[in-house]
Order: sequence, then structure tokens, then C-alpha cells
Amino acid sequence: MTDLRSDGQAALEWAASYLERVGDLPVLAQVQPGEIRARLPAQAPEDAEPFSAVLADLDEVLLPGMTHWQHPRFFAYFATSATPPGILAEMLAATLNSVGFLWRTAPASTELEGVVLDWVAKLLGLPEGWHGHIEDTASTGTMAAIIAARETTGRDEIVCSEHTHSAVDKAARMLGMRLRKVPTDSQFRLRVDELGRLEDAAVVVATVGTTACASVDPVPEIADACAAAGTWLHVDGAYAGTAMVCPEHRWAFAGVERADSLVVNPHKWMLTPMDCSLLWTSRPADLRAAFSLVPEFLRTPDAEDALSLSEYGPALGRRFRALKLWAVLRCHGRSGLQAHVRSGVELAARFAEWVSAEPGWEVCAPRHFSLVCFRAPGGDDSNRALLERVNAGGEMFISHAALDGRYVLRLAIGQVTTTEDDVRRAWDVLRREAALI
Amino acid sequence: MTDLRSDGQAALEWAASYLERVGDLPVLAQVQPGEIRARLPAQAPEDAEPFSAVLADLDEVLLPGMTHWQHPRFFAYFATSATPPGILAEMLAATLNSVGFLWRTAPASTELEGVVLDWVAKLLGLPEGWHGHIEDTASTGTMAAIIAARETTGRDEIVCSEHTHSAVDKAARMLGMRLRKVPTDSQFRLRVDELGRLEDAAVVVATVGTTACASVDPVPEIADACAAAGTWLHVDGAYAGTAMVCPEHRWAFAGVERADSLVVNPHKWMLTPMDCSLLWTSRPADLRAAFSLVPEFLRTPDAEDALSLSEYGPALGRRFRALKLWAVLRCHGRSGLQAHVRSGVELAARFAEWVSAEPGWEVCAPRHFSLVCFRAPGGDDSNRALLERVNAGGEMFISHAALDGRYVLRLAIGQVTTTEDDVRRAWDVLRREAALI
Repeated sequence: MTDLRSDGQAALEWAASYLERVGDLPVLAQVQPGEIRARLPAQAPEDAEPFSAVLADLDEVLLPGMTHWQHPRFFAYFATSATPPGILAEMLAATLNSVGFLWRTAPASTELEGVVLDWVAKLLGLPEGWHGHIEDTASTGTMAAIIAARETTGRDEIVCSEHTHSAVDKAARMLGMRLRKVPTDSQFRLRVDELGRLEDAAVVVATVGTTACASVDPVPEIADACAAAGTWLHVDGAYAGTAMVCPEHRWAFAGVERADSLVVNPHKWMLTPMDCSLLWTSRPADLRAAFSLVPEFLRTPDAEDALSLSEYGPALGRRFRALKLWAVLRCHGRSGLQAHVRSGVELAARFAEWVSAEPGWEVCAPRHFSLVCFRAPGGDDSNRALLERVNAGGEMFISHAALDGRYVLRLAIGQVTTTEDDVRRAWDVLRREAALI
Repeated sequence: MTDLRSDGQAALEWAASYLERVGDLPVLAQVQPGEIRARLPAQAPEDAEPFSAVLADLDEVLLPGMTHWQHPRFFAYFATSATPPGILAEMLAATLNSVGFLWRTAPASTELEGVVLDWVAKLLGLPEGWHGHIEDTASTGTMAAIIAARETTGRDEIVCSEHTHSAVDKAARMLGMRLRKVPTDSQFRLRVDELGRLEDAAVVVATVGTTACASVDPVPEIADACAAAGTWLHVDGAYAGTAMVCPEHRWAFAGVERADSLVVNPHKWMLTPMDCSLLWTSRPADLRAAFSLVPEFLRTPDAEDALSLSEYGPALGRRFRALKLWAVLRCHGRSGLQAHVRSGVELAARFAEWVSAEPGWEVCAPRHFSLVCFRAPGGDDSNRALLERVNAGGEMFISHAALDGRYVLRLAIGQVTTTEDDVRRAWDVLRREAALI
């Protein structure tokens, strides 16, 4: 039998030691497809094994197949960071194992979720009175907003830019809705003069901090157009939204206060473990109207005065995700979150300077927040080869994007342990490998 | 700064002690709506607080507002249980904090998920070659299956019974699909003679173990009808599916081997913490065709030979949920899961016997698995009053359902710590309170 105290002690030691040594491991897993599967038995054991066996296999069998998101030189996609408060809170949430589909099944979980969403709204300077709740991912939150927009407007067109996250393409397909993509300008921002007729549009999705290059759509002008046409405005701030915690980054979020809904992911840049994606709406009654469905087995006498968060999104069962966000907010404080964002932005700015100053190298989009899009000398093929070489080496991990049809490299900073030395080393590796191509 | 070792030690001690004392706490939270919120500050702290403050507030502020799902006398909805292997694995998953949207971003997580789904498929006696992955909840897995059915068949009608889970109603609304409900027979099973024309039906949802009363739809006959009409067959075994681990319960799952998709929730009866809902399909290519969408920033050279599980469901980001299921399967073993299921079924059978033998009391549906639907003497109002009385007392927590328009009480067993004494005590409380109405 697994013992929470003694086996827990070993698990905790494993976790602490993992976080100490992760910087020495190759960032990108150095395995081939199928290799980890081949090392695992074909069936579950007949009888119980000790937890120590699981821990040993985690180390020996699984670890070589992990891409280390907690590595200080993880610079791909949007780098993330899970710190101890959130890690421990996840253990506590699993211990409590509450399922918050109704207020009465988890009053503290339900109310804490409302409280921490209000806390984050204040930290980010959002208007008072918005209703927020937690979804697993921005894919789900965005889909929920689109469904609410469709139900509210009675329309079935989604409008977004060519740089809007693919989650919107996926939602359109899942929901059977039409999708219209608006071109972007030279800085990869949605072109308002190309927005076109919105009278059939259920929703426009604007992004502050696009996935490709962190570009910032002109939200105030889009909000004007939406208001005129009665179209729902959804803002995707999944990555960059956390930057609102710093007053000096608020300029990028002008107009967000006029959104009908907004997504921000604390599991991206707010030090919270996956999964924690926040969906706010300034129209809670419309969101609830789209999702509320209370069958007989869920009716309770307290239904009218007690909020059930399952009425605001797709899933019925809800785990206690608010606990980790609460722990993170308290154990880092506003000042800690600000320091984390500022550090990432500063390191990215430094990296962008190095790239700009290097002959033949190029920064390919205005550097916003903690993301730098750049190219090494040579064409698409050389840059593609460079990405594969640096990632294969295990010293660092970056990803790529397409901008104006060109293949560009992306370096994103978000790990709390990333130092200037790590960014410097990445830059050294990039130049070293580029010279060999 | 939160220290994973020392603060972790305190968190672990809190968790272990919570599980030791949870049986002494009132099962249903004894608070009013808004009470917990009122005890919490209106904003996040400016500066970092110690983790010990979080732990203290968890105890003092939140705990009174928890409904205790880990309580041995939690008998409501479907009782669940999270045991130490899964609890510790959640901490490890948060420590690794991998995000498995592509194979290369989390090879071990992706491949372990395939392996443990194969393990469970074998444990449950499912056909070889099915493709399985983990979703957060059955709501999401069911919605995914329905989308795949719609894309595959080109049809937009969903057919289910009046006792199918409300997640199907919600999916129909979210997806803008038509829903047709088929009446049930005297044992609350979908009436195949009322299935009607399936030529326009994208999918029939059959349930083994309905939410109201664990009734078992006639899956073989439904499978015949689906096969004849080219309709997708989705089977909801969210709760009861775990019972397939015991050969003596396999009779109830005849025909499931002909399903196009199947949902089973280890977070219900397989000792795994929320959230862990399994979706298998015998038509992986069709599921993938419905969800695969690989934008430029996610293209990698290994895309062709490496499976990315985000191509099989709605969400892009995926946390390392397989780790907890792997830990649970190994640390309980097949024999441990069987013992857990058998214990729940035996206790439920015993409770049903007591009810049947008691003058004026009634078992209201055939007792399947670990759920008993019953009524105390008197009408709907007395039974409603009885439920509120026993729940308000904090000694036990049950829920209700509507069967043939009657209000019935439900007692579900699923906690690993529930003993015959607990069930006996529930029975004593029920009779004591019923006598006072």
C-alpha cells in the first residue's frame, strides 16, 4: 500500500531534486517515436506494486522521454513555469478530490474560484464586475466564448486575423461555424480596414500577443466595429495577458476593457502549473444562458442563490483548479509576478539587441513582451536546419513560425529560473551552429 | 520563497492527516452561499506570503466550505476515491509541468498515455487495436465522439434515451445539433422498438450504468440498428465501465465491443483523482480526421511518425494526466481494482437488502453495480425532506433522481474507505430521520 507520508516524502525529494538538476538535462527529449512505449510492459500488473517502483521507473524509463518544460533554456512556443506553491497545491487539490459541478458539491472551491478570478482581474486592471472562471486550456475558453457569442447574436460567422491562434480554426470546425480571416499589416496586426461587414458576424477574435510573434491587434478600433454591428468581441490574451500586471505594459491592452470575453492563461506566464486558463466575461448572463442546463439529478434547494460554475462552460465536472492559482498569487504576490514578467521582457529585449547587432542576423517582428522572432543568415532551409541542430543538441529548445511566408525562429522567455547566462548561452549555441551550416 | 522540501513536508502532513480525519468532518459543507467568499480578502497580497499561511487558511477558511468527496459516507452522485498513488502523481505531473500538444513537446507523456489506455483496455476486456486518450471529463469525451460522428456521417441528429446523461443535451446545444430522446422501459433501459429511423442520425448514445439508476441499455440491439443505418455508436460507461475489470460484471457490457467510441472515467470508480476520463475509439482515423489541425507553428519533422494526441480531441494543450493513472494501475494492480469494485457492489447489495426488507421502504430500480435507488415511506415531498435532513446533519451525503416522474433517493458507493459500518450508519440515519418527518 502506498503510504502518503513515507512514499510522499520520496516523491517530494524526487520533485525537489528534479527541479535542481533539470538544467543539466537535455531540454528536448532525445528519443525516437515509440522508444518509451517499447520500454513499458504491455499490461498492468496483477498485484499492487510499491510506489517506489513507480518513482524508479519515472526516473529510468520516462525521464529520457521528457521534454523539460521546467528547463531554464526552454525557449520554445511560450515558455512556462510551475513554481512550488502551485505544485504543492495540486497535491492538495488531488487529496481533497472535490468535484465542483454544483455549488453544494464544492462550495469552497466554487467561491475561491470566484475570489481568485477577481484578484487576478484587479491585478490586471480589468473592469469591476466581470465574471471569471477557470477552464483547462485557452482552446476550451475560446470555444466557450464563441458558443456564447453565437447563442447571443444568433449569427454563425467567426472573424479573426490570419495570425489568430489555431484554436479558433478548430472551434469553427467543431461547432460547424463559418470562419473569415482578415489580413494583417506589416506588424502582423489585424487590419481594421479589412474587417469588412460584421452584421453576420457572431464574434470577432482579437489577440494581444499572437502566437507567431506576440503582435497586438488594434483592439479599440475592433471594439468600435463590434459595437456598431452588435458583434461579440473576444480577446485572446492567453500568453500576454499576464503582462497587464505591470503598468508599463498596459498600453498594449487598450480596448480590452470593452471586450465581451477575455482569455488569460496563468499556466503560461503566471507561474501556475497546467491547466489553468481564465475566461472572463462582461456578459455573465449571456454566458450562463448559453451553458446552463440543470437536469433533475442536479437540482438542489440552494440552486437559486448559489452559483454553479458548470453553468458557465462546457464541462460538468470541475476539479479544484483555483487552489493552485490562489497559492501562486499568495506566495509570489503582485510584486513577485511583476518581477517575473519584467525579467522575461528584459532578457528578451537583450536577446533582440544581440540579434540586431549581429551582421546577417535579423529580428523579424517588433519585439513585444518576452518573445523574439528572428532569423539567422541564409534562407528558410538554413533556418529550418539551424532550429533542428540547436534543438537536437539538447542545450536549448526553440520553435518557429511563419511570418509573411518566411520561416522564422522564435525565442520565448517564461521560465522563472532563466537567467541572462542561459539566454547568452542560447545565443552562443545559435551562432556556433549557424556557422556550421 | 516556498521551499518544495520543507513546505512540501508540511503540505504532505496536512494531506495525510486530512485523509485520517475526514471521516469525522461533516460530509456536506455546512455553510451558506457567499460565506467562504466573505472570509477571503478582496485582493491578492502585494508581497509574497509564506506557504504556511496558505496551508493555515486552507484549514481555517476553506475547509468548513468543503464538501468532502473523500469521506467514507459520501454516497451522493457517483462516489469517488483518490488514493495516494494518484495524489502523489499529480504533484509529480505538476513538477514536470509538461504540455503535450505535440509528440516532441512531451514524448513520454504522449506514449505513456497510449500505454496506460491499452492497459485499461485489456483490464476491461475491450477489443485490441482501439485508440484511447484522456480527456478532463466525460462531457468533453462525449462531445468529441459526437463531433467525430457528425463529421464521419455528415448527419446532425443525436439519438439517446431519456436517461442518457445531460452532457449529451449540452453537447447538442453547444454543437447546434438536433437531439431525439427515446423512451425507456420499465427497467429504465432505452427501448429499441422506439429507436425509430436512424438514417439521419449521426450517433446513438447508449449507456451502461445511467446516472439516475445505473440501468443498462441493450447495447447489442442498438449496435445492430446502428450498423444497419451507418450510425456511430457511442457508449457511455463513465461510471460503470470500471466494473468490466471483474469478469462477473462483463454481462452488462455485451455489445460494447461493437462501439465506435466509449467513455470510462477512472476518476469515478478507478481510484484516480479528478480529472481522468478515457475516450476510446475503434475508428481512430475518423476521430483524427475530425480534430487534426496542424498550423505552421506546430509542424515538426517528426510529425508523420509521431502521434500527437491533440489531434484526437478538442484541446491543444494537454497536461500529464497519464502519470496518475499509471501510478494507480501499478500501485493497486488488477486485483486491487477488482477488490474495490467488488466491495462497492457487495455493500450496495447489502443496503438494497435492508431497504427491501423494511416495511414501507422500497428499492425503486434493479440494483446494478454500486448504486441503490430507493424511497422511504411517504410521497415525493417526504423523500425530498428526508434527503435534506440527512444531508444537513453532516453524517452522510446522498443525492436524488427522478424515475417515472417520482423523486427517488440514490445511495452510491465508491469510496475506498467505506466500510459496512458506514453503510449501516447511513441506514440508521435514514430510518431515524424518516421517523421524524
